[in-house]
Amino acid sequence: MAEENIIYVGKKPTMNYVLAIVTQFNNNVDKIVIKARGKSISKAVDIAEITKNKFVQNLKYSRINIETEKVEGERGETNVSSIEITLEK
Amino acid sequence: MAEENIIYVGKKPTMNYVLAIVTQFNNNVDKIVIKARGKSISKAVDIAEITKNKFVQNLKYSRINIETEKVEGERGETNVSSIEITLEK
Repeated sequence: MAEENIIYVGKKPTMNYVLAIVTQFNNNVDKIVIKARGKSISKAVDIAEITKNKFVQNLKYSRINIETEKVEGERGETNVSSIEITLEK
Repeated sequence: MAEENIIYVGKKPTMNYVLAIVTQFNNNVDKIVIKARGKSISKAVDIAEITKNKFVQNLKYSRINIETEKVEGERGETNVSSIEITLEK
């Protein structure tokens, strides 16, 4: 059965996430979902592209989804955009 | 025949791009491609989501594509991630 894992992109450097993903693909994970919100969306795209083009062969994007999430902030509920990029062997 | 237009996301405020897209959909354009590179990718996702959820009914994402482009900079060629979001009526 295909294993699936989720990587949440935050404030760490881009290459930390790339390394985490590469390690998982090297340990028989077949499918990884990269999730990010707001300004981290650009970083999520970098992470996906670097992983796919430089580190793991024969990866493809099986799904790229964007949507809006509601987040509780100090001044009440606000909307934030999010992305989910599914990388699959 | 379906008309298609391209919006390049740069440094202007998010709502400027939203307004430009809404105006085009109101003038019989059926399909708009939003393109962005690097840090503007997050803004492109915001623009697409705001347009789709608040301003133009029955829009769907017919294609979301991410890739790497080569850009000539002061210190030679560098790689930059890019996104293309296709909004269609």
